[in-house]
Amino acid sequence: MIGFETLLRWLDLAGIAVFAASGALVASRKQLDLVGFMLIAAVTGFGGGTVRDLLMGRTPVFWLRDPALLAVASAVGVLVFFTAHRIENRFRALLWADAVGLALYAVLGAEIALVGGVAPWAAVLLGVATATFGGVLRDVVCNEIPLLLRKEVYALAALAGAAAFVLLRMHGIWRDTALLAGMALCLAIRAAAIARGWSLPAYAARRD
Amino acid sequence: MIGFETLLRWLDLAGIAVFAASGALVASRKQLDLVGFMLIAAVTGFGGGTVRDLLMGRTPVFWLRDPALLAVASAVGVLVFFTAHRIENRFRALLWADAVGLALYAVLGAEIALVGGVAPWAAVLLGVATATFGGVLRDVVCNEIPLLLRKEVYALAALAGAAAFVLLRMHGIWRDTALLAGMALCLAIRAAAIARGWSLPAYAARRD
Amino acid sequence: MIGFETLLRWLDLAGIAVFAASGALVASRKQLDLVGFMLIAAVTGFGGGTVRDLLMGRTPVFWLRDPALLAVASAVGVLVFFTAHRIENRFRALLWADAVGLALYAVLGAEIALVGGVAPWAAVLLGVATATFGGVLRDVVCNEIPLLLRKEVYALAALAGAAAFVLLRMHGIWRDTALLAGMALCLAIRAAAIARGWSLPAYAARRD
Repeated sequence: MIGFETLLRWLDLAGIAVFAASGALVASRKQLDLVGFMLIAAVTGFGGGTVRDLLMGRTPVFWLRDPALLAVASAVGVLVFFTAHRIENRFRALLWADAVGLALYAVLGAEIALVGGVAPWAAVLLGVATATFGGVLRDVVCNEIPLLLRKEVYALAALAGAAAFVLLRMHGIWRDTALLAGMALCLAIRAAAIARGWSLPAYAARRD
Repeated sequence: MIGFETLLRWLDLAGIAVFAASGALVASRKQLDLVGFMLIAAVTGFGGGTVRDLLMGRTPVFWLRDPALLAVASAVGVLVFFTAHRIENRFRALLWADAVGLALYAVLGAEIALVGGVAPWAAVLLGVATATFGGVLRDVVCNEIPLLLRKEVYALAALAGAAAFVLLRMHGIWRDTALLAGMALCLAIRAAAIARGWSLPAYAARRD
Repeated sequence: MIGFETLLRWLDLAGIAVFAASGALVASRKQLDLVGFMLIAAVTGFGGGTVRDLLMGRTPVFWLRDPALLAVASAVGVLVFFTAHRIENRFRALLWADAVGLALYAVLGAEIALVGGVAPWAAVLLGVATATFGGVLRDVVCNEIPLLLRKEVYALAALAGAAAFVLLRMHGIWRDTALLAGMALCLAIRAAAIARGWSLPAYAARRD
């Protein structure tokens, strides 16, 4: 199982890198400076897990206990600062990478919450929060209406993945199997939404 | 006293429903989708109590321990999504219901803080935070300047109610009596402000 | 050493006053009312330390344990409400006072974190957070892109001061000496940035 733990570690760092990159790309649209890129990269990469840790009372929060995470987020911020003019043309590639991060964080966040002792339904919610709040904080700090609020299938995909993982664990399935199944479900839904442009109808004012 | 506890429970759920509805109405102005309605409803309904719990170190926060609260907020979000075109014409009714929620949360928030062991003046502040921060978070996430910051008598009413409750408790008055007195004071002030259009003057740049 | 502790206490209150004033000046630009001035003053004065305390799990947060801090922030909010039309002409004086607050909070925040038992590199980060997040929250609540994100030498000065303090402490230097050295370094860098208009280049979209 050491091989699996090592894979998880690399996937975790990859998730931070991808979310940090999405934050830094928003920073490039706002024409911030280098410190701004690094800050937004870190907020986007760590925001979801930080909210989860605070709501659970799991302090000090996770990124204060592992300097590698900060190193990755900062490095991505710097990298995007110098290369964003190229990456911007690859928005679609980022969208797919972001879907991987979403799948990873929704399920890993739910597992951390479950191990921390909260109820299963609460663990599902905290998984969704882990996967989505980094992006919400990114948009709030950059003064935009959070994209999450406009892309229904984004949060729904995280919800499906986290719920599948928790249900499988409740029924005695091995952790590794449940993790992979939850991630696969979330990724499949999100991928279909991207590929087919799925979205649920937004509210539009109607008069009787 | 069981009757009183039951009443408090229903008032508590009613408070969540009212604040969740105010959040969902803002979501309708922003033309968000169904998930957006549910998220903003939950943020507005739970935001104040979450900030109170985090500042006090009372974790996991309250709504992670009681699934009924989430069910109410989500249901209200869905309900408003399909009926907002009718409710919008009833803004004034909502304003009054919101005043009831304000009175309830200011006093119940102060009691939770007092029971949690903070100083009386801090309990008053945490009561005001419980009553007002849900609306602040709603407006920040939706990218508007918080209404609270423009409606002085809103925060002042919460302050008066929470302070009255804490003072009565400090002088040995029964909890139930102090709760009702604090709520009545807050509601009376806010009702007068709504009915008469009270507001304190805003700052306007002056030059000597 | 009692003299030094007393000096720190006064510097701490002065730091709150200065940051509260910067918040109230933003409130005057937004033409908020008196309660708005007091709220923004408190958010700006306490925001950085609150984020530090929450991330570390140091609750109840500091300002719930010391009523003098709230009294200072509120009084400054009221004072600026009635005098902002004069202070606005003194923006440059405020910029300098703010630099003093930045130096103080970066180093004192790092010390609180270090005493709280986090790793040295994390203490440096928490010092920077203490010094800068009050201003970030001020700008987010007032619906502006945080100034911090546009003024690189601001966060860098806090980083240098906090890092110098932590490094000196790691090498066995007395606390008082390390505090003063860290503050002096932060203040010197920020002062140079203000006096000479230093700033690092912002990202500007480039096409290959």
